[in-house]
Amino acid sequence: MRKLAMLGGGFIGRFYTDSIQGYRNKDKVVSIYARREETATQFAKDYNVKHWTTDMEEAIAHPEVEVVCVALPNNLHEQAVLLCCKHKKAVICTKPLARNAAEAKRMLEAVEKAGIFAGYLEDLVYTPKHIKAHESVMNGALGRILWAKSRETHPGPHSNWFWDMEQAGGGCMLDLGCHCVEIARSYIGKDIRPVEVMCWADTQVKPIDAEDHGIALVKYENGAIGQFEVSWTFRGGMDLRDEVMGTEGTIWINSFLRTGFEMFTTGKGADYVAEKAESNTGWLFPVGDEMNELGYNHMFMDMFDAIEEGREAKETFYDGYVVNCILDACYKSAKTKQWEPVQLDIWRGKTGVTKDGHLVEYDADHYLVKEEMTHYGAKKLILKEKATGKFIERVEK
Amino acid sequence: MRKLAMLGGGFIGRFYTDSIQGYRNKDKVVSIYARREETATQFAKDYNVKHWTTDMEEAIAHPEVEVVCVALPNNLHEQAVLLCCKHKKAVICTKPLARNAAEAKRMLEAVEKAGIFAGYLEDLVYTPKHIKAHESVMNGALGRILWAKSRETHPGPHSNWFWDMEQAGGGCMLDLGCHCVEIARSYIGKDIRPVEVMCWADTQVKPIDAEDHGIALVKYENGAIGQFEVSWTFRGGMDLRDEVMGTEGTIWINSFLRTGFEMFTTGKGADYVAEKAESNTGWLFPVGDEMNELGYNHMFMDMFDAIEEGREAKETFYDGYVVNCILDACYKSAKTKQWEPVQLDIWRGKTGVTKDGHLVEYDADHYLVKEEMTHYGAKKLILKEKATGKFIERVEK
Amino acid sequence: MRKLAMLGGGFIGRFYTDSIQGYRNKDKVVSIYARREETATQFAKDYNVKHWTTDMEEAIAHPEVEVVCVALPNNLHEQAVLLCCKHKKAVICTKPLARNAAEAKRMLEAVEKAGIFAGYLEDLVYTPKHIKAHESVMNGALGRILWAKSRETHPGPHSNWFWDMEQAGGGCMLDLGCHCVEIARSYIGKDIRPVEVMCWADTQVKPIDAEDHGIALVKYENGAIGQFEVSWTFRGGMDLRDEVMGTEGTIWINSFLRTGFEMFTTGKGADYVAEKAESNTGWLFPVGDEMNELGYNHMFMDMFDAIEEGREAKETFYDGYVVNCILDACYKSAKTKQWEPVQLDIWRGKTGVTKDGHLVEYDADHYLVKEEMTHYGAKKLILKEKATGKFIERVEK
Amino acid sequence: MRKLAMLGGGFIGRFYTDSIQGYRNKDKVVSIYARREETATQFAKDYNVKHWTTDMEEAIAHPEVEVVCVALPNNLHEQAVLLCCKHKKAVICTKPLARNAAEAKRMLEAVEKAGIFAGYLEDLVYTPKHIKAHESVMNGALGRILWAKSRETHPGPHSNWFWDMEQAGGGCMLDLGCHCVEIARSYIGKDIRPVEVMCWADTQVKPIDAEDHGIALVKYENGAIGQFEVSWTFRGGMDLRDEVMGTEGTIWINSFLRTGFEMFTTGKGADYVAEKAESNTGWLFPVGDEMNELGYNHMFMDMFDAIEEGREAKETFYDGYVVNCILDACYKSAKTKQWEPVQLDIWRGKTGVTKDGHLVEYDADHYLVKEEMTHYGAKKLILKEKATGKFIERVEK
Repeated sequence: MRKLAMLGGGFIGRFYTDSIQGYRNKDKVVSIYARREETATQFAKDYNVKHWTTDMEEAIAHPEVEVVCVALPNNLHEQAVLLCCKHKKAVICTKPLARNAAEAKRMLEAVEKAGIFAGYLEDLVYTPKHIKAHESVMNGALGRILWAKSRETHPGPHSNWFWDMEQAGGGCMLDLGCHCVEIARSYIGKDIRPVEVMCWADTQVKPIDAEDHGIALVKYENGAIGQFEVSWTFRGGMDLRDEVMGTEGTIWINSFLRTGFEMFTTGKGADYVAEKAESNTGWLFPVGDEMNELGYNHMFMDMFDAIEEGREAKETFYDGYVVNCILDACYKSAKTKQWEPVQLDIWRGKTGVTKDGHLVEYDADHYLVKEEMTHYGAKKLILKEKATGKFIERVEK
Repeated sequence: MRKLAMLGGGFIGRFYTDSIQGYRNKDKVVSIYARREETATQFAKDYNVKHWTTDMEEAIAHPEVEVVCVALPNNLHEQAVLLCCKHKKAVICTKPLARNAAEAKRMLEAVEKAGIFAGYLEDLVYTPKHIKAHESVMNGALGRILWAKSRETHPGPHSNWFWDMEQAGGGCMLDLGCHCVEIARSYIGKDIRPVEVMCWADTQVKPIDAEDHGIALVKYENGAIGQFEVSWTFRGGMDLRDEVMGTEGTIWINSFLRTGFEMFTTGKGADYVAEKAESNTGWLFPVGDEMNELGYNHMFMDMFDAIEEGREAKETFYDGYVVNCILDACYKSAKTKQWEPVQLDIWRGKTGVTKDGHLVEYDADHYLVKEEMTHYGAKKLILKEKATGKFIERVEK
Repeated sequence: MRKLAMLGGGFIGRFYTDSIQGYRNKDKVVSIYARREETATQFAKDYNVKHWTTDMEEAIAHPEVEVVCVALPNNLHEQAVLLCCKHKKAVICTKPLARNAAEAKRMLEAVEKAGIFAGYLEDLVYTPKHIKAHESVMNGALGRILWAKSRETHPGPHSNWFWDMEQAGGGCMLDLGCHCVEIARSYIGKDIRPVEVMCWADTQVKPIDAEDHGIALVKYENGAIGQFEVSWTFRGGMDLRDEVMGTEGTIWINSFLRTGFEMFTTGKGADYVAEKAESNTGWLFPVGDEMNELGYNHMFMDMFDAIEEGREAKETFYDGYVVNCILDACYKSAKTKQWEPVQLDIWRGKTGVTKDGHLVEYDADHYLVKEEMTHYGAKKLILKEKATGKFIERVEK
Repeated sequence: MRKLAMLGGGFIGRFYTDSIQGYRNKDKVVSIYARREETATQFAKDYNVKHWTTDMEEAIAHPEVEVVCVALPNNLHEQAVLLCCKHKKAVICTKPLARNAAEAKRMLEAVEKAGIFAGYLEDLVYTPKHIKAHESVMNGALGRILWAKSRETHPGPHSNWFWDMEQAGGGCMLDLGCHCVEIARSYIGKDIRPVEVMCWADTQVKPIDAEDHGIALVKYENGAIGQFEVSWTFRGGMDLRDEVMGTEGTIWINSFLRTGFEMFTTGKGADYVAEKAESNTGWLFPVGDEMNELGYNHMFMDMFDAIEEGREAKETFYDGYVVNCILDACYKSAKTKQWEPVQLDIWRGKTGVTKDGHLVEYDADHYLVKEEMTHYGAKKLILKEKATGKFIERVEK
């Protein structure tokens, strides 16, 4: 059983606590910190939390607290983490880890110096679909991974601080792109170095300084491409999809709008309001169990099991740091309008990986271009002659 | 924290235990009974169970055991439940409750006389999708429910006892139809009396005495229709779908083959074997988290919470008994080739409900048949003249 | 090039003409008959038709007319067909052929006696998806067909005559069930005799005498089951789906609501009205090319090609007659509440077909019940001992 | 009725002819040219073509020929078009128009100088789904278009010349990207100038010099983004999808792998080979009517109708030229690793369009950031204070 302090009583703090205290779990939030007293007391009441405070350090230092969960606006993460270091409390921090790589690096170095457990709450690599898909990829079901793409678009976040550059540190790329970057990294291999990025970002619709739409390509040392598409201007609900392409297979995951639950309602029967949907009549696509489908349950299980087993979590501050480095390069590329290198002062994965080859040997004289079954049941080959470079067709019976 | 005896160490006993002991749960299996010693010892080892036995009563009577989970072939349910009565242990029993209504009735009367908690493990009304859909239906999002249909078809069960009439008590209708009947009941209203059934069943493919394919309609007192389609001969995996139709809306749920997870693999990359799938190459449709998606987690949560709160579970032996009564009528109808009444010696829901009316008043002189928006934006009405019975069209601008 | 008279200028007459005169076709409507002059003249203008009339026989007898297309309410089909016989004009008649089997039989005998071409306009066995699926079934891709199910449900027809028993002859079963019956017949084999039916029908919502919801099972001589589900009370648009189950495979076809075209609109941008949809905001599911997807194009191609090649169409009056015989039995069964034989005075298919066997030989001593791949890669068999009837498990490595 | 010469008797020439001579069409191929005699004679026999030749000019000059259809490898387009100019024959040319912009420009100028009809055979903006979606977009159902994305990926083309840089002029970007570019252009507006592009391309799998995978962003003068994703290394069949995002809505189109036709087959029943699929067992996703779904029918209808009505086709050589200009910029960007301007020597659309604004007025003091319905039914607003730039939340009841 883990006892937690929750820092932040807003949307995400509540979502986290629903997961942590949900089902038949052993874990419990014992202290809640919020900036406003009314938020703290309401939270304490709703979740049966013994201790509440508007003093962040008080919550962290609370003697019963073993683990601190940071669910605050981005600009407050560093401060919270440094206090955890001071009080030697295990810390788990919401995404993105920081507003930029410099901040993330300081946080990473601080927790390592303090020797505390530091987990990164990247829920979307803990969704049941991702876990199973990732396992298949690791088993080789898709062959060599060529392209891993992740997309999160919706009509914009719920709270006002997200829209403010100073507090948030960026727009939809920082808010949503951090998920997508880590999803792609996890399929391509977290030990493969991200080398450079190409990014477009724009403010197309919202009256804000930050970007409300962004697309980026992240090139890895082995030649694989990670891609993200994020937006705060999408209409139709929350679109959350991943696509992975390998030499031997493909994975398509839809985590929200098409998960096998479809409802039509005229709205005459009742004033039904669907969660995160943009309408409450017509065809609606609810998700059965958001907490589980969005990965919260399996994420906290990994965090608390890791603490109890004395091991690192699957997602650590180091991962959060790498994500921030990639996003920094994205923001730079969006301005310079060219590929920008990913600056990784700290790199703990493989080095010197080379691009995978694309010459598939067919026989001594030919490379294999393609093999297909024709309509009349014969096998048709397209081969490249090594000597001449010519492409020939051959039909085998 | 609940301490359980698990009766049965086969496929379903293991699935149950995975759910009960999974995630960060507080509950624990402390005794395992299996008919064969090797099954019991293997189970005890795999799930870290302290006590094992091949004597059913020993497991039930074990002093640490608070709750007994019956995960045995159908013909052993009654015996197990009677032993729980004798030892005054809470009991939760897998589906179907019994092989027929007579057996179910004896079990129901026994647990009520003994005054023990008796939960019915009908997982499919606990799936996250069902829970959310059911809530919408209760809120009126679909208006009056007209038709609730459930379908479970797959290529047949894993264990040999299912195929044997004596042990199983029936074929796919008893095995799968019990789910479907309760799903439909839950949408239509568990307090609405099932009145009569019409059923077709046949042995089309398998060398067995029981039916391997069955379809039935269950008529409820308010005129609503429950329908099930079950088969052990379906090719393509496990098809698990529900469809609900109301006067104001529609719900479609797909719990297995199309849940937003799609994978193609040539099979060259790895020897991947997908769960319950019929192939390991080509397009595959895995489910992310079967335990959660199939309702096991929420079902056991309800059971244990109910025990702790001193209330009944959402699904009780009474529900299991009603399901058996409906299935008995189905088997009879399949033989007599006519509608057969559902014989319910015990009925605890509403009585004297009448069929809902179908005359929608438009104005003093007309009933409303249909209202639609035409392509050119006008509202078109079809009305029935009360006096003459004639149908007229009227266009409003 | 064919020259046609179109009888009926309503919704379906216009749809037919759109298809006949559409694309780069050679065929042309040269005469239009409608009961009301304004309908006839408007039609003539819209489709550039030279001759119009409110006298049915005049259109049929028109010297330029080679083919007569009957697109009239059900109660006028027989009269129209008899006039075609009198004037020896080829006739193609919309579905259902007649209001009942007696009427259909008279029409069938009349056209055969007159020796004229008589095609039955059952468009849904001409949809591109059906044509391709049917070909796969005929090639054996699904093995032996066990169950063919078709469903058509929507919020009710556009014109008032459909709702009137006298003109229509029935409700949604006659209107929509005729499609479903022929779809199932075509998968099971049009030469296999439909033997008996079991049907439920009710008026659940609409203020009409006819049924607005019906479900039926049609048993064929070889043991296969055809099923239909039809309703005029469905909410959410037009649901048009088929499902075929065979010993070696499965086919699922969705012809309307989920065809790979999805649109969300807030409705703020424009007053968009989607065809046949029930709403014009939120998620909408249009069909790209209704004329082609619903089979009209391929149906008329077959009709006119057949006339030019001097052969029968794929769908003839005989097929329409068989459908009416099956529907008659459905209506009867809905009243008597038992299986009713299909009375077929004229049967031109196979006779004496017996039910397919279900004993699959494994070896001299066993039948094969099931073969599956286990998670650990071994092949698991369930066998039935011929001598004892016992079911055993066997694992092969 | 149009009489055609078909230049090229390969895969695409046959596909075109199937469409042109299909259904009940009036048009006819009267002369076939192929480079190899056996191809020409076989084609002439299969399609009942009176005249065949291995001399390109002979086919074009044939007195009966009114329209010449160019279905040749890319490197032969210019030569064929110049011969059409010489003989003043209407010409319709397969995609891409040319191997690069310079070639395309010469062809465009030649046909305009010759005064002949010149249609560009970009079938994918003629698919029924595209036509209907495009109509909705033009009607404003999606508001202002922000992002139009198109994706075509499959396991590589059938014929050997595609793989050869000299004949093809490029890899999958030229082969498939040309479709995607025109689809995006058509949603964003063909009169809106494409300004600059950012592109990644690589040869990841195939032993070829050309790219087998490419992704590009095309920025338009109004700030909208066109995107394409193309690959010859995708596994799982032919993936053909478009996604359009506007301020008021979303469109998702799937033209191949998920169109409402799903089939599972064990393969035991028959040696079924599905078209373009990568497997012939397991779950397969056929398309009902490729000719119609891929736009061929509506494309040729537009071409021939245009010729008869003396107007331009919807897709002209000018469109093909713009596409080549965009693709040239893509190839350049893939090398220079930065955004590259689209060089359009000829531009016939709007000029001086400015980026659409993103400041949505709420009231005199605020911009509107977001409006959403909360779970408890209230309307929540996020506003930006014009004076301070601060973001505030406001709940309306």
